[in-house]
Formats: sequence, C-alpha cells, structure tokens
Amino acid sequence: MKNVKVIIWGMGAMGSGMAKMLMKKTGVDVVGAIDIGQKVGKPIFDVLGEEFPNNENIKISTAEEVIKEKAADIVLICTDSFTAKAFDKIKKVVENKINVITSAEEMAFPKAQNPELAEKLDQLAKENGVSILGTGINPGLIMDVLVLVMTGACEDIHHITSRRVNSLSPFGKAVMEEQGIGISVAEFEQGKADGSLAGHVGFPESISMIAEALGVKLDAINQSMDAIVTDVDRKAPYGEAKAGSVAGVSMKASGIKDGKELIEMDHPQQIEPEQVGVKTGDYVIIDGNPQVNLVNSPEIEGGVGTIAMCVNMIPQTINARPGLVSMIDLPIPHAILGDFRDQIHEEAKIV
Amino acid sequence: MKNVKVIIWGMGAMGSGMAKMLMKKTGVDVVGAIDIGQKVGKPIFDVLGEEFPNNENIKISTAEEVIKEKAADIVLICTDSFTAKAFDKIKKVVENKINVITSAEEMAFPKAQNPELAEKLDQLAKENGVSILGTGINPGLIMDVLVLVMTGACEDIHHITSRRVNSLSPFGKAVMEEQGIGISVAEFEQGKADGSLAGHVGFPESISMIAEALGVKLDAINQSMDAIVTDVDRKAPYGEAKAGSVAGVSMKASGIKDGKELIEMDHPQQIEPEQVGVKTGDYVIIDGNPQVNLVNSPEIEGGVGTIAMCVNMIPQTINARPGLVSMIDLPIPHAILGDFRDQIHEEAKIV
Repeated sequence: MKNVKVIIWGMGAMGSGMAKMLMKKTGVDVVGAIDIGQKVGKPIFDVLGEEFPNNENIKISTAEEVIKEKAADIVLICTDSFTAKAFDKIKKVVENKINVITSAEEMAFPKAQNPELAEKLDQLAKENGVSILGTGINPGLIMDVLVLVMTGACEDIHHITSRRVNSLSPFGKAVMEEQGIGISVAEFEQGKADGSLAGHVGFPESISMIAEALGVKLDAINQSMDAIVTDVDRKAPYGEAKAGSVAGVSMKASGIKDGKELIEMDHPQQIEPEQVGVKTGDYVIIDGNPQVNLVNSPEIEGGVGTIAMCVNMIPQTINARPGLVSMIDLPIPHAILGDFRDQIHEEAKIV
Repeated sequence: MKNVKVIIWGMGAMGSGMAKMLMKKTGVDVVGAIDIGQKVGKPIFDVLGEEFPNNENIKISTAEEVIKEKAADIVLICTDSFTAKAFDKIKKVVENKINVITSAEEMAFPKAQNPELAEKLDQLAKENGVSILGTGINPGLIMDVLVLVMTGACEDIHHITSRRVNSLSPFGKAVMEEQGIGISVAEFEQGKADGSLAGHVGFPESISMIAEALGVKLDAINQSMDAIVTDVDRKAPYGEAKAGSVAGVSMKASGIKDGKELIEMDHPQQIEPEQVGVKTGDYVIIDGNPQVNLVNSPEIEGGVGTIAMCVNMIPQTINARPGLVSMIDLPIPHAILGDFRDQIHEEAKIV
C-alpha cells in the first residue's frame, strides 16, 4: 500500500501542529498545505520553524491549487469553529472525492445546531464515497467520548457531570483575546451580548452526542457564560489579568430530560488557576449503577489534545462507510505508534 | 422493528445479572435462558429471585432446546473464561446464524493465545453472516479500551501503566475459592504450580489489544502472580483471611518492545483492602505527549461492570460486519437508557 496522503488546510497553531506530528510518523505523508495571505508560497519547514528530513519541504499553496480530485486520502481542515463557516471548504474537499477531518467544534455533531447543513454534508459525502468527521479534544474526547465510554460500565444512570477545569496559560494571544483575558467586567458583558466573546464552543454538540448515544430525547439544552473575575493580579505568557478584571470564562450547560437535569457540563477556563488554588483536571462523575468518579489531573492540554485526536482518527475516518460520521459512529480513538498503512483497509484507500 | 431478542447461556451471577438488566430495558426481550443441572425447567423469575412484570417468565432450558436457527438476534454466553472451553458453544450459536457476545475473558482478544481458534471463529462467523464479540469490565474496558481512548489524545507515547486495584469483598464463594482467599502461602504456591489458581485472566488479551491498536509488535508479554499475604485478620461476607494467610492475588504483566517495557499492567485484587489502607481504583498513567494521569476511584466493581458491558455492546455487535470482532473494531461502548431498537440498523436485525 502507498503511504497515506494528507493535506492540511489551515496552517495556524492546530494545522501546523498536525503537520509536525504527521512528519514524525511512519507510512503517512503531508502532500499539501493550504493557507491564505503571506504564508502562501513559503516552504512548509519555514512555517513550521523546523526541518523534517524524511519529508518533502512542500510549499504552502492556495486551496484552488491543492484540492484536486483524489489528490489525497484525507484533508484536515483547521480553519473554523462553526459549521456554517467550514461548510464551503468541506464541500469543496468532498466534491473532490477526499475524506475530511475538521477541528471545527460544531462539526463534532453538526446536527445539534445545523441539522440542514449536516444533512447536506451527509448526502454530499455519500454521493462522493467519502467520510466527514469533526473531532478534537473537546468536543471529541473529554466531555463526550470519555463520558460515554465510562457509561459503558453502567446498568443505569440518573445524572452525569462532565467537568473540565483547565488553564488557558499555555495558549497564545488569539485565545487570550477570544476568551476576554484582562478585560473589564463591563467589556465582558458587552462582548457576551454582541456575540464577540464565544467562550467554549461545543456544549450543544457534546450534550447531543451523549444523549443520542444513550438513546434519550432531551427537552432542552441550556447554556451560560460568566466572567471569572480575579481578586489577585495574574500573569500568563501571553495574557494578563489585573485584580478586578476577567481572568477567564466559566461555561456551564445542562441537558434537561423530563424537566430534570440529566447531563451537567461545567467548564471553567482561566489563566493561572494554580495561583488561586484551583486544581485543573478532567472529571466524569456519574450517579448511576455503578457510580463513576473519574479524574484526569492535570487536564489534557487543549492544543496537543486536538492535534493528536485529529491525526489519530485518520484511519477510522478513511475506513468509515461514506457519510457524515461522528465519534459515536467510529471505532474507539487511540494513538498510532506504528505504520499508518497498517491501520487502513485496502478497499478504503483513495490514492 | 420488532424487539431485539436475546438468549442468555449460563444463568450464574453474570448471566442472571444480564437477564435482570435486560428485563428493565425497553425494546429488548429475553427469549431464552440456558443452563444445566437443577436450574433446567425452572421459571426464570424463580432463578432471578425477582419478578419482572412486562417480561415473559420463560423456563430455563437446555442449549439443544433453545439454540435453533435464527432463534434470536444475539446470545450472551457467560459460562467460561477460556476460548478453548467456550469454543463449541460459540460455534453452535454461530452455526444457527445468531450473533454472540461472551464474557469469556480470553475471547476479548482470542488471537492473543488461540490464533487458530480465533481464525476458525472468524470464518464461521463470516460464513453465517453474524458477529462474535468478547467483552466485560476487564478485559473489555478498564485495562484496554479506557487506556486506548486516553492515548487518542497523545502525539507520542513512551510508557503506559494500567493499574486496577480492586476489592474482592463484593464477590461470592466461587471467586473466593478461585482467588485462594484464606489459604496458606504453601497452598497458594501449589495451586499456582498446578494451574488450579488462575488469578486474573486477561492480561495477554488486554496487552495484545493495546499493542495492535497502537500498531506496535511486541517482543514478549510477561506475566506474574503472587500471593498478597495479610498481616492482619480480614473478613469479607463470603471469605476470610487470617493473619499470615492469603488475602488476595497480585497480578502483574509487561508488554516488551525492543527490549524495553512499553505496557505495564498491575492488578492487585484482595478482600478488604481498606483495612490495610489500600485505596481501590482504576488508573491509567501514560508517559507521553501529553502525560495522562487518570484515576477512577473506587474501581468499577467487576460484576456489575461486566454485566453492563455485555448488555450495552449488544447493538454494536448486531450492527457489526460479520466476523470475529473486538472492542477495538467497534464503535465506542456506552449505556443505553432508551429503546434498544433505536440503536439497531434495520439491515442487521435477524428476527
């Protein structure tokens, strides 16, 4: 079998991280990299800031130059968070008969918020004989797949809590701005009202994924976003919050069944949580038979986790039956230490 | 769609637990129950010690009476731990064109120790258009699937530790005897030498499953079993260990790659661990990028966990492409709170 061929669309922190990860792996080649603006035309090793001897130093190109019929086995699209924004890119790839994995959070379960676009993508994928998966660390693993895997040991469930307490300190300037680090409470409320502060994207997707797998129809999904106001000065490498300003965002959500909360999501994210005695971690607490009381501490860092999930799900996505799929349709995620080709079904290989 | 039809083969603690769990669920019926000896002919509610109003009070029967062509969608076989012992039963079911889930530990990944029998079962399943899965709490979830799911967030891995520290106190007389609770160290050594003390069955299966998913070829799998000798008197409901006698079994195993340990398994199981300050739990510790440091404490109790895993994997097994499958081939495990029929693909339904 020829090496698995991968194109990366979006050479920001996520796409670049996936390129680096893939270049250290066996049986897989990065055959195309897409971006816009000043990166176009640059050798990929320049953009990655590192050389990878056994890999070709391809040039960053435009989508028009790279996305040709069956130009690769899969394209990793890391450009957007929202289904509506990622739609045209996914469509272009699928119409060129190439599988897609995207880190767009809403694409982890697009029928939660965009059922019509999800339906269109499913049809397009089937028509073209390829698969589309949205994944990442969250949604994609911590607040949905990990929860569901633990419910596998349960006879019955009364209530589920998924809690992800994470530090924003490892992230760069873009995340600091997106999450409102250092702004005043008034600015935060303004940003929340006008939609410029998104906070975590993914609760409706994670909750809907859990509900669908469990086989329950929820009455409602409620979501809230509040400022985490610090009472001490906090300083991270790329962001700073003076006492009285915003050091992070507390996101909560509920999945309601028969008027009662069945699924609780709690996701406070802030810079320098340790400074105020907050211990970071990923928690799954299930009130059921049996009880589940799981913690992974410290939390899996979002950046590396999303990079790894998108790369590690390549075989499952290539092997999947054509269509729009989600993490609950595919075999369990896992790392790949060996040859990527060993994980691909012969009949599913495109090029 | 008609209700999912299930036959249970083996009405011991596991099979009875599965029957009870299924009788509380929607869209699924227990249409047959098989045992030998004195239970044959008894109404199932008598054997379960409980009535389940919306279920038929079927009689426990022999395999010959119950296993007929397409008599059910799936048979849950809970009679054995070893592939060689379960083989004829699985064969009989498969030749009657019915899917199989078995709690036999070695069947979680039978090619680890019985590659020829695994090959035969795979062929039989394909010839008859059905699937065979071995699962349970361990192997099946805690020391393999949960480990693999967490590796999904990893770019690279240097070493994996899976640790399950559990209490044997909830188990009955049979387990107390199997694990040598209360015997002398000399008796333990004797039982270990003559093979009458098995300890935990499943390390080669869990380690092989992890290695196969990661795509690595191991040089060797090593395994050890030692007595946990208590220095205080311990007393559980069905077993007792005086100071100086055996209160449990310490099982360890290693998966070796290029002369170095890649996968470590550590599974001490004993009665009344709390009495000597041992905290029970399920641990996944991955030295990689990123690090994983997960604990579920207390551990998922083995009985209810195995019952739930076997029942919850029914849809994935019925829906699977024909053949011998394992937990790494199928969609992620999860609980089922809704109608079982909603989880079954139309074309996969047998009766």
